[in-house]
Amino acid sequence: MQYPSQIKKKNHTMINYGNRGMNFEYLINLSNTFYLEKDHALIYKKPTPIGIVDVSYTEKGKVIQQAYFKSPSTLDYNGLYRGKYVEFEAKETKNKSSFPISNIHPHQLEHVKKVLQHHGIVFFLILINHHTFLLPGECLLKFLKSHQRKSIPYSYFLENGYLIKEKIDPPLDYLMVVDEIYFGGMK
Amino acid sequence: MQYPSQIKKKNHTMINYGNRGMNFEYLINLSNTFYLEKDHALIYKKPTPIGIVDVSYTEKGKVIQQAYFKSPSTLDYNGLYRGKYVEFEAKETKNKSSFPISNIHPHQLEHVKKVLQHHGIVFFLILINHHTFLLPGECLLKFLKSHQRKSIPYSYFLENGYLIKEKIDPPLDYLMVVDEIYFGGMK
Repeated sequence: MQYPSQIKKKNHTMINYGNRGMNFEYLINLSNTFYLEKDHALIYKKPTPIGIVDVSYTEKGKVIQQAYFKSPSTLDYNGLYRGKYVEFEAKETKNKSSFPISNIHPHQLEHVKKVLQHHGIVFFLILINHHTFLLPGECLLKFLKSHQRKSIPYSYFLENGYLIKEKIDPPLDYLMVVDEIYFGGMK
Repeated sequence: MQYPSQIKKKNHTMINYGNRGMNFEYLINLSNTFYLEKDHALIYKKPTPIGIVDVSYTEKGKVIQQAYFKSPSTLDYNGLYRGKYVEFEAKETKNKSSFPISNIHPHQLEHVKKVLQHHGIVFFLILINHHTFLLPGECLLKFLKSHQRKSIPYSYFLENGYLIKEKIDPPLDYLMVVDEIYFGGMK
């Protein structure tokens, strides 16, 4: 009678993985909605870029019949906070000991450099080992410059990242950390 | 022998309309690419938001099988210029005497107010009567507050808008006007 337990195990794993991915993005989106409603910041997730292959026209309007996902050249979230341009990417890893850099597209790393050149605020929110860290773009670039490794060890996050405390409202108050790093304290 | 001329006329009209729409967006995209390559500004068109209904998995990866276009709640372009957050929308009208306000979604108008509250730069690029005008968000809101009209007359653009000169590189140098309005002169 191995069949049912195997099915169960497979489903269990798939659900867990999917939920974790959804949850992290969901918590960030909830936080952004909270910031928006409280008139605290204007930060939105950019729609995923797609390439449209085929469109049809129905009574309800234009319907996309075939399209594919393009790889992003900028980061997922951007907006306006305390008069400043803010852009960031949210990534998570199942790996508990390190974050694989391959999770970030080379075009995105080039973009991070450009945002810094143009005096924008740019960072990564990384969920690793059940903790969410804010890692400033500067820190990520510094790591890549001084290390040949293909992943960032957890210890680097503990030393150079900023832990985001989980709260109720907003669930991931990353702007509290942004205040600390980029504005020298409380709003 | 009416058939061929009718076809011709129909095609002609369709091509003209399509080209005009494409051209305006195309010229803005070319200008943004120019600014990006010259390291002058980081301004991107946001992907059109879509709602995905059905996805299939093929050898080449995930393919969207059905999706629809969502109405945008922010403006089409945003980015970073001279350390400032910039957001704008590009619209054109075939109407030579006025610009119908229905071209702008109510959610977008609310968004314009919020960007101003948060000290961002926000404007509209309007192609009307073969001319492209930059109309600051403040001017659009002022017009809506003081007029009951459902369209903005061309004369309002002549009086309150800023004409964008057509050049070779970039084809629509709207940042030259942004320098003038928001930064008090040349970069």
